[in-house]
Amino acid sequence: MGNRVAIAGVGLTKFGELWDKSLRDITLEAGMYAIFDAGIKGSEIDAVTIGNMSAGRFTGQEHLGALAVDQGGLGTIPAYSVEAACASGGAAVRHAYMAIKSGEHDAILVLGSEKMSDVNQSQAMDTVSVASDWEWEGLFGATFPALYAFMARRHMLEYGTTEEQLSLVTVKNHANAANNPWAQFQRPVPLEIVMNSGLIADPIRVLHSSPISDGAAGLIMCTEEKAKELTDIPVYIEASTQASDTLALHDREDITTMAAVKKSSREALQKAGLTINDIDVFEVHDSFTIGEIIITEDIGITEKGNGGRIVEEGLTALDGKFPVNPSGGLKARGHPIGATGVAQIAELVLQLRGDAEKRQVDGAETAMAVNIGGTGATSIVHILRR
Amino acid sequence: MGNRVAIAGVGLTKFGELWDKSLRDITLEAGMYAIFDAGIKGSEIDAVTIGNMSAGRFTGQEHLGALAVDQGGLGTIPAYSVEAACASGGAAVRHAYMAIKSGEHDAILVLGSEKMSDVNQSQAMDTVSVASDWEWEGLFGATFPALYAFMARRHMLEYGTTEEQLSLVTVKNHANAANNPWAQFQRPVPLEIVMNSGLIADPIRVLHSSPISDGAAGLIMCTEEKAKELTDIPVYIEASTQASDTLALHDREDITTMAAVKKSSREALQKAGLTINDIDVFEVHDSFTIGEIIITEDIGITEKGNGGRIVEEGLTALDGKFPVNPSGGLKARGHPIGATGVAQIAELVLQLRGDAEKRQVDGAETAMAVNIGGTGATSIVHILRR
Repeated sequence: MGNRVAIAGVGLTKFGELWDKSLRDITLEAGMYAIFDAGIKGSEIDAVTIGNMSAGRFTGQEHLGALAVDQGGLGTIPAYSVEAACASGGAAVRHAYMAIKSGEHDAILVLGSEKMSDVNQSQAMDTVSVASDWEWEGLFGATFPALYAFMARRHMLEYGTTEEQLSLVTVKNHANAANNPWAQFQRPVPLEIVMNSGLIADPIRVLHSSPISDGAAGLIMCTEEKAKELTDIPVYIEASTQASDTLALHDREDITTMAAVKKSSREALQKAGLTINDIDVFEVHDSFTIGEIIITEDIGITEKGNGGRIVEEGLTALDGKFPVNPSGGLKARGHPIGATGVAQIAELVLQLRGDAEKRQVDGAETAMAVNIGGTGATSIVHILRR
Repeated sequence: MGNRVAIAGVGLTKFGELWDKSLRDITLEAGMYAIFDAGIKGSEIDAVTIGNMSAGRFTGQEHLGALAVDQGGLGTIPAYSVEAACASGGAAVRHAYMAIKSGEHDAILVLGSEKMSDVNQSQAMDTVSVASDWEWEGLFGATFPALYAFMARRHMLEYGTTEEQLSLVTVKNHANAANNPWAQFQRPVPLEIVMNSGLIADPIRVLHSSPISDGAAGLIMCTEEKAKELTDIPVYIEASTQASDTLALHDREDITTMAAVKKSSREALQKAGLTINDIDVFEVHDSFTIGEIIITEDIGITEKGNGGRIVEEGLTALDGKFPVNPSGGLKARGHPIGATGVAQIAELVLQLRGDAEKRQVDGAETAMAVNIGGTGATSIVHILRR
């Protein structure tokens, strides 16, 4: 039922501490790149959807949908703004997917954007924490590094996951980011440096954590018909799924797994008629490196408990059987919250088109993005196919 | 194309200063009432959509979608959170409309919620202002009362609209709210009191302005098939439209009209195959009474400039030809920002079912809701039919 949904263009700003650019500057920049990339006329775009977590707190501006249409000179078209914590970008993609499938829109400019560096680090951490269960977690000082530290400790206890394995995810993702011109950290880091970086919430070190970032990403999402007019290599969204879990970590039976990731990834594979072995390349949510380890298990790349070992074995490296985070992931590409889920899709579109240059996964035809909010209270999965 | 979308249940909290209830309490309460009203099982609901403007600033909690599913005990279903300033509630309804029409969901619990009274009045005004163009309006002290004062002054100059007419909207809406058990102000106010109330931004007085409110509203939106299982009187959404305008007021050619309201209401009538004369009852966005006057003109109840006079003539009274805001509107029912657009739809569903008791518009079969963001940068219109 409904239209098939395609992606005809992608755009990114460089991620990082962008002191000389405002929220509206970066949002506009990513949108313009996506428009240029698709070769679409402004008048052919009939809506804008933007994913953002907390511009109200980070920059004192809400109503970003209307702002984006206004600043983009896109006239009177509808503008939608969606939020799902760190999965806000994925939520924007899913929103646009449903809007096109419903027949209400033919071509949507999808944006993800966040400007985090205009407040100080303590304010930034406070604002990120409002994505946790504030009354039961954030208020008591359980920041996200602390919550992920619980998950990591338990994973180490149950499955023998090591600090070295947590660190090897960083090493892999930085190696990939070294070849990504849009990444915040375009340099490799040796294992020794990661293992000796500052401890922020035992066992999580600063180099196991994604940074505070500014950045934006954009997509042109449209009907199959429109995509074929615009490009020779449309990329199709074969499945879009989403699931929820308890907001607070302590309400879950097992904190070494993310039930919402399990559910949404299985549903997505089923809808696409694929198995995990059919997926050629992955972007998954490594806000902390333990997150990547848990997610690779929960989506079925390996069995529960083995996520650390497959990093050692190189299975998720760029030339491995299941390349994970060729972009560098949240860890090394950067994590401007609302932009992340859109940037994951942008990276996978480049991979499927064969445009990912030195970080290209050879012959990639299918891809999966896993974007989560909080410690996994929201999981949004997209499967793409060339 | 796509499924026909229906509403099978509505729920409201009382609006007001709800000191003894938290954001999660009121959100849950409205959702439970909607579920009870529809007689739907929790297991039949396959998604939650919530409209909220700025819980991040008002109460230090984002990620409201996941929170609502968690607190509601609704398991692992997807949860969407949308924002469009004062039109966040309307945006939630439109989001759910597209999600059902796309075939991705069959029955969605739609929520709108805002808890504004947990911060002081100055913080509340600051937070409301982030829905304006912060860099060009809010930052320079142009609060919403000030922006609407510009619109009112110009409307008075061009069309001879009077302070008495601005005040008569208040008198009418309070008279309606006196019969609405969910309203914040369930009492009539005489014209003289309104005319002599404190001036906050000349010519706008405190009793021309909607209050700071807490409150939540809920709907069960579903496919036609599901609605027929649940209820004998399903209400159908015949059209859902949205349009944008410049975020800043000073960028518009004419500040006595809201171009986005004009466009979205005309499109909605066209999609529904109706004219304005076919609509039996209206809920429109009277955050300031000049707003109601401008919107009644822009949707075509009367010609431009005549919106003040039709209030004097009683055309928009409960027993007039075009009853506007039988609920009491934002002015008297209250305006918990994210809840407003959902509460408008809830009121209209009660009207179309014949369940609006003393404020019932006799024999109402069709209805229109106009929910705007800011000074009209976003306009969302829904047409309902019994």
